[in-house]
Amino acid sequence: RINADRLWDSLMDMAKIGPGIAGGNNRQTLTDEDGEGRRLFQRWCEEAGLTMGVDSMGNMFMTRPGTDPDALPVYVGSHLDTQPTGGKYDGVLGVLGGLELVRTLNDLNIRTKHPIVVTNWTNEEGTRYAPAMLASGVFAGIHQQDWAYDRVDAKGKRFGDELERIGWKGDEKVGDRRMKAFFELHIEQGPILEAEGKDIGVVTHGQGLRWVECTVTGKESHTGSTPMPMRRNAGRGLALVTELVHRIAMDNAPNAVGAIGHIDVYPNSRNIIPGKVVFTVDIRSHELDRLNAMIERLLAEAPKLCADIGVEFSSQIVGQFDPPEFDAGCVKAIRDAAERLGYSHRDIVSGAGHDACWINRVAPTAMVMCPCVDGLSHNEAEEITREWAAAGCDVLMHAVVETAEI
Amino acid sequence: RINADRLWDSLMDMAKIGPGIAGGNNRQTLTDEDGEGRRLFQRWCEEAGLTMGVDSMGNMFMTRPGTDPDALPVYVGSHLDTQPTGGKYDGVLGVLGGLELVRTLNDLNIRTKHPIVVTNWTNEEGTRYAPAMLASGVFAGIHQQDWAYDRVDAKGKRFGDELERIGWKGDEKVGDRRMKAFFELHIEQGPILEAEGKDIGVVTHGQGLRWVECTVTGKESHTGSTPMPMRRNAGRGLALVTELVHRIAMDNAPNAVGAIGHIDVYPNSRNIIPGKVVFTVDIRSHELDRLNAMIERLLAEAPKLCADIGVEFSSQIVGQFDPPEFDAGCVKAIRDAAERLGYSHRDIVSGAGHDACWINRVAPTAMVMCPCVDGLSHNEAEEITREWAAAGCDVLMHAVVETAEI
Ligand SMILES: NC(=O)NCCC(=O)O
Ligand SMILES: NC(=O)NCCC(=O)O
Repeated sequence: RINADRLWDSLMDMAKIGPGIAGGNNRQTLTDEDGEGRRLFQRWCEEAGLTMGVDSMGNMFMTRPGTDPDALPVYVGSHLDTQPTGGKYDGVLGVLGGLELVRTLNDLNIRTKHPIVVTNWTNEEGTRYAPAMLASGVFAGIHQQDWAYDRVDAKGKRFGDELERIGWKGDEKVGDRRMKAFFELHIEQGPILEAEGKDIGVVTHGQGLRWVECTVTGKESHTGSTPMPMRRNAGRGLALVTELVHRIAMDNAPNAVGAIGHIDVYPNSRNIIPGKVVFTVDIRSHELDRLNAMIERLLAEAPKLCADIGVEFSSQIVGQFDPPEFDAGCVKAIRDAAERLGYSHRDIVSGAGHDACWINRVAPTAMVMCPCVDGLSHNEAEEITREWAAAGCDVLMHAVVETAEI
Repeated sequence: RINADRLWDSLMDMAKIGPGIAGGNNRQTLTDEDGEGRRLFQRWCEEAGLTMGVDSMGNMFMTRPGTDPDALPVYVGSHLDTQPTGGKYDGVLGVLGGLELVRTLNDLNIRTKHPIVVTNWTNEEGTRYAPAMLASGVFAGIHQQDWAYDRVDAKGKRFGDELERIGWKGDEKVGDRRMKAFFELHIEQGPILEAEGKDIGVVTHGQGLRWVECTVTGKESHTGSTPMPMRRNAGRGLALVTELVHRIAMDNAPNAVGAIGHIDVYPNSRNIIPGKVVFTVDIRSHELDRLNAMIERLLAEAPKLCADIGVEFSSQIVGQFDPPEFDAGCVKAIRDAAERLGYSHRDIVSGAGHDACWINRVAPTAMVMCPCVDGLSHNEAEEITREWAAAGCDVLMHAVVETAEI
């Protein structure tokens, strides 16, 4: 079993970097705080005897050697970046859980045949730079690195420039590593495990996702002196599409979800009718056909709704992945570990996207989930218990050690 | 007649300060650009022999002496601040039109019995600091100066601090001046004069306004892993209220208008369901009872619409004025001037708020309007012709000179 207190203390220490305003974290990718969090993680890993590699996307690989120099490593990890109003566990638990299992193996003097590599993937959250899971996506060959470098944040800052600025652009070629397997521990971010009183979620599948960045174009004009029939109010386009997305999601629930989280209004002045609104629709389902049909409906109906009120609708996909199905062998390793350790468990579909979804394309992959309070995540009030964290980390360790072979 | 080319050249020179991105201006109140615009106006006025007074709200008063030292001055002017995506004429025409009439009187060696004071009122637009017409409102005793100083912009900067920072907090006590009359020249900002081919609008009344700052509170959570029934999406509250405001306005058109121009979404991340949206409803009518009934309906229906989808609605009034009726004598002076000069004209209701609406409470006041292309304003593409500007300024001069007596 892992050391629950040590894991918890590390979680709390990491949470001191980039604190939020309500008890959580704001440690967005490629900010100074992200750099500081990486340095703390590096120090801890080096103290545990791991050696660091960093690739050109800033992905960190901390290696514990195996006894067989030719054996492919088993990878484990998640991400240290957070949402602007993020919790202390989303991503961080998976990275520090990987570190904790190494510390435990050190304590117990256990060597594995295959090396173990603890990983921190860059920009998993996708809030500053769309799409999410950007760097694991480049690693898996889904995106081109140059394309990733050219992503810009809301202030126009390039991903590539910011990665260099914080000093975490490594010289390893991204995607060059081969893996025996990849395991990711993550909080559920949904309500199912807690509601059913299960310790462990064995993740068999994930939802697919589409992020559709929409632009509604109207005409800026005076809120007071423009007669109602002359108005071309882009804000009304946003309103109609907000409700359309909700209807599409409800018509497909419980097998799908949908909402708009990001909205920028131009010029955003109290007495100017919005001339332009840019916003991102997030639609997900674990069924690919359903997901595609929902997007088709959005792209068929939204332009009409907008045209009817005299504004224009255009859109582009800025993030997408199809529903992943995890590796049967890795999934079994997790289920068996939970069983062996006596933790209650159930199979589960991940509602969120994870680095594991991309790594699954290039290596046998699976995920362990632990419950979180009220299913709440992407909120500073995100919370888990020490016991939940420990159970998840125990299962992770057992699955990893079984795969890495003693 | 005034010198049309000189007026136009001054308008174009002022537009070089705080240029926008599409041919208009971004010279928002109490920015460095506002300070620079004020200095240029000061220099021009001093070259024309005027002497400056500045009050503690930053209002500028440029005086041309009268022949009778005891006679109350006739005031004329408007504002130099602009919207973030503002035009070159909204406000500026009224200030530089005042300067142009003084220059013309100088050319013609005409002295008036009453002094003439050309005025630039601080923060008319209200976009950086609500409410609009803030400094003329303090001058007229509508707002307290300390309250005005405490207004904050979206970045949390206080009005009082910014006024000091740009160096335009004068030592004259605000509101101490008495006026024989106040005249304001302004572009119509609506389509009526151009559509009817009229040179001049004689403004008899204005619309009243209410700015209602609304906050919809939901709960931040993950867009992917939060089941649809558990969502409390503040963005949906915005959507429902956007359409409610539109319905209320349409039910009262053509005697009222309504829209939402300002929207801030928190935390504004692609994969976080909005936990809070703050936005400002702008509702106007020239009929007081109608205006009040519209607001009552908004405040009765919006909370219900929000409660039905599990989010909370709260609101506060951040700007308001009742429909003004201008001084019959001043209105007549403008109508007579237009008639005498042979300009086509009609009586008109102002769709926008103006400093004249507040000064009307403390002095006999009226407004001259000139057409603008397509009724477009609060848009960088706002446009007028040299002839329209000249006609408006001619009428302004004649009304002022008649009131100031030769
Ligand atoms: N786990 C997680 O929140 N990832 C961010 C990508 C997503 O929105 O699902
Ligand atoms: N004239 C003008 O646009 N004033 C700003 C205040 C308002 O919104 O009416």
